[in-house]
Amino acid sequence: MNRIIDLNSDLGEGFGAWKMGDDEAMMALVSSANIACGFHAGSPSIMLKTLQAATTCGVSIGAHVSYPDLVGFGRRNMDITSDALTADVIYQIGALQGLARAAGTRVSYVKPHGALYNTIAHNAIQAQAVISAIVAVDPALPLLGLAGSPLKTWAEEANLRFVAEAFADRAIHRDGHLVARNEPGAVLTDARTIANRVVRLVEEGGMEAIDGHFTKIAADSVCLHGDNPAALAIARQIRAALDARHITIAAFAG
Amino acid sequence: MNRIIDLNSDLGEGFGAWKMGDDEAMMALVSSANIACGFHAGSPSIMLKTLQAATTCGVSIGAHVSYPDLVGFGRRNMDITSDALTADVIYQIGALQGLARAAGTRVSYVKPHGALYNTIAHNAIQAQAVISAIVAVDPALPLLGLAGSPLKTWAEEANLRFVAEAFADRAIHRDGHLVARNEPGAVLTDARTIANRVVRLVEEGGMEAIDGHFTKIAADSVCLHGDNPAALAIARQIRAALDARHITIAAFAG
Amino acid sequence: MNRIIDLNSDLGEGFGAWKMGDDEAMMALVSSANIACGFHAGSPSIMLKTLQAATTCGVSIGAHVSYPDLVGFGRRNMDITSDALTADVIYQIGALQGLARAAGTRVSYVKPHGALYNTIAHNAIQAQAVISAIVAVDPALPLLGLAGSPLKTWAEEANLRFVAEAFADRAIHRDGHLVARNEPGAVLTDARTIANRVVRLVEEGGMEAIDGHFTKIAADSVCLHGDNPAALAIARQIRAALDARHITIAAFAG
Amino acid sequence: MNRIIDLNSDLGEGFGAWKMGDDEAMMALVSSANIACGFHAGSPSIMLKTLQAATTCGVSIGAHVSYPDLVGFGRRNMDITSDALTADVIYQIGALQGLARAAGTRVSYVKPHGALYNTIAHNAIQAQAVISAIVAVDPALPLLGLAGSPLKTWAEEANLRFVAEAFADRAIHRDGHLVARNEPGAVLTDARTIANRVVRLVEEGGMEAIDGHFTKIAADSVCLHGDNPAALAIARQIRAALDARHITIAAFAG
Repeated sequence: MNRIIDLNSDLGEGFGAWKMGDDEAMMALVSSANIACGFHAGSPSIMLKTLQAATTCGVSIGAHVSYPDLVGFGRRNMDITSDALTADVIYQIGALQGLARAAGTRVSYVKPHGALYNTIAHNAIQAQAVISAIVAVDPALPLLGLAGSPLKTWAEEANLRFVAEAFADRAIHRDGHLVARNEPGAVLTDARTIANRVVRLVEEGGMEAIDGHFTKIAADSVCLHGDNPAALAIARQIRAALDARHITIAAFAG
Repeated sequence: MNRIIDLNSDLGEGFGAWKMGDDEAMMALVSSANIACGFHAGSPSIMLKTLQAATTCGVSIGAHVSYPDLVGFGRRNMDITSDALTADVIYQIGALQGLARAAGTRVSYVKPHGALYNTIAHNAIQAQAVISAIVAVDPALPLLGLAGSPLKTWAEEANLRFVAEAFADRAIHRDGHLVARNEPGAVLTDARTIANRVVRLVEEGGMEAIDGHFTKIAADSVCLHGDNPAALAIARQIRAALDARHITIAAFAG
Repeated sequence: MNRIIDLNSDLGEGFGAWKMGDDEAMMALVSSANIACGFHAGSPSIMLKTLQAATTCGVSIGAHVSYPDLVGFGRRNMDITSDALTADVIYQIGALQGLARAAGTRVSYVKPHGALYNTIAHNAIQAQAVISAIVAVDPALPLLGLAGSPLKTWAEEANLRFVAEAFADRAIHRDGHLVARNEPGAVLTDARTIANRVVRLVEEGGMEAIDGHFTKIAADSVCLHGDNPAALAIARQIRAALDARHITIAAFAG
Repeated sequence: MNRIIDLNSDLGEGFGAWKMGDDEAMMALVSSANIACGFHAGSPSIMLKTLQAATTCGVSIGAHVSYPDLVGFGRRNMDITSDALTADVIYQIGALQGLARAAGTRVSYVKPHGALYNTIAHNAIQAQAVISAIVAVDPALPLLGLAGSPLKTWAEEANLRFVAEAFADRAIHRDGHLVARNEPGAVLTDARTIANRVVRLVEEGGMEAIDGHFTKIAADSVCLHGDNPAALAIARQIRAALDARHITIAAFAG
């Protein structure tokens, strides 16, 4: 059995004078940092500082690419053409790669952000536009995306490595799909329960669905949030639970 | 004698639905294309198309980096900190490099744009910030800047290759400095006169100053404008005059 | 019979150094100018100059409000919340009203732009967000929108005046709906044909559908394009045809 | 003697998903709220919410206008033309006025932000551009600016009401000028000392300079900061000290 898991988090999501989340605390908990690339967050100075912090902490670096929507924080779906989306994604990866070289490090994977993340988990056209961008700029970069989504197949057909991500604080249906946020019980808040789900994901290859059924999930990474004190406490509990079970926390790439 | 000169022009300066200048015509006339990187102009799709056109035409590619000022087209000086300016320049170079890889080509030099170009020709602090950016992201990239400016020394002290650029349509003082735009006779408009200045620059290593004195100028590149029909006619006249004298037009890098 | 029609056009759609269309030519042809408010086009200086030109020409002024999407020119649908859309629309109307006061004139109506225009013609949620914005900032401002769309009912239920707009260069189905752009014959290009459609719209209250059937259309305004020489020629032909038939061209508001 | 003073603070300085400062706490302490207008901070939704909060708290509303520089938070000087600056300021005032109407309230004054505030305190050209904007959009709006600066004269020559603002937490020279931030002792941090300076400003019409000399300052408003817990504590101490001396805290306009 593969007693190893990656923990990733969205970091560097400030912009100019604005801050978002506790990057310092999170950098100490994760193995992979999704760094905003300027389209939903992340001005160049912040990107550079976040890259330097990741390097200091030995954390792998992902390009956290987004629709161009600062005021909407990349959370709004957008009817963008494939050509524009591909160019936007290449631009963002390239910018982060440039800053990574300047910081003496490199970009190891790509994780789409927010609305783009959700959309390409099921929308083939936008998914292909993102896949084309990665293939064009660096086909060795894995794509981190939603476990159980068709994106895995689409990426692998393009010879991209797909890395599946699970959400430990979100309830799932028996078929593995996330329970919609507006349904009761969709978001878990008890730190111990959430940490136990991560342990079980690693040790048993699945999670308990909302109906109590054990559902198989193949995931190599778990997403941690750190944008408020409660989220940070959950992240620490997950980390502690994995350590207690001697499960290795390690980046999937880099 | 070095009977060779580079002709460069600012290209890809549209943004989204907006166009600027006749890129197609200019791409056929120059040996080096300064491609806007998104901060004063140049959305990712336009950058990608301009890179593809440059590759097709065998034209060298420069990162045309700017202050972050879309609405001002990068023409306004800005009191930006060195850290922010360095990060901004790395970001832009990296983004263009990413798109260049996707287009099967590469970035060969850096030319600051507009207000940033003028400022770093004499302001040591901002110049050092730009130089630091290039050194950090790729110290093999030459910096294209104003002939006769102290920027040459600053760049070379940092082991950057400096390439000097002259302006054939601008009158100069006896000491080589440009005559300010608001002074009479500052801007030349006669295509034949301008073309002859370029020929003399190559063959005799200098230009006639506004007082009639012949002034030595060491320049490896001449900037062509193409943003209106008159400018385009001048560019064609320069090209024709160089061809007639069997002067080689060739990129200085790439 | 009401032998009067408004001709409107999108004006002031440059941004900073970028231009779009021939505003000067169009201002002389229309009775109403839809002025971009900074979200898809229209920087403040351009807005002010366009307002001054409209005032000089005696043309009524509309706030041409958009999704916040400069790089996409407001042509991309966006999943924006109602609260954000309402605030965005109020912001844009208010900004144009401020500039209009400074120019000694005033805003007389609101016309949503691009993707927002198309979306609110059928999407009740986004339509209500736009209607709420107008009601909140100035309920005396009419809303210019697509003839035959449910937007008319939604606006009137909120006690807003709705002004219906027809497109003379677009083929329609027998039921009045526009033929989709990607279908054959969707876009008309013959200036005389288009001009005759406008005359018939005014004199007979309808247009010929793509199947030859005469379809009733109640419209008080016709949209003219001026973004290329052919479009401008069509606009001039429409104006001439209306003049020849002694049909009054007059703004519906202002 | 005029035992009355206005307390103002910069509010609504978030943008989209980003927050800045504790607006709720500050709104309860001040009599005037400088509301960001979208150019350095303040997306339309945030502007609307801040306007509603100000109205609920009975706080006067000022347009906190800025250079167009989101990533620099309006803190960087910019060589902007007078025409562009005037149009930018009108645009921002108009946008806030539109949202104020929607919130059932109105804009009562204008306070330039950050670098623009500092620049127009001594730069006549940019000052005139801002003054022209206010005169054009609504000459009844007072301009809140630096006490002791020539801006007062420039504004009054244009028949604008000028309201002088003092900074209680900044040391001053004997001539009333602020001690530069990088000099020792420039910024005061003891809450009691700062509060006493405000009381003395009201009761004696001046403050103690850094050399111990009592310097006369005519100021009708004091700027409170709330962007960190220490700043908030100082603001509360000032408010308490004024209440203890039965000094009225009241808006200068609205």
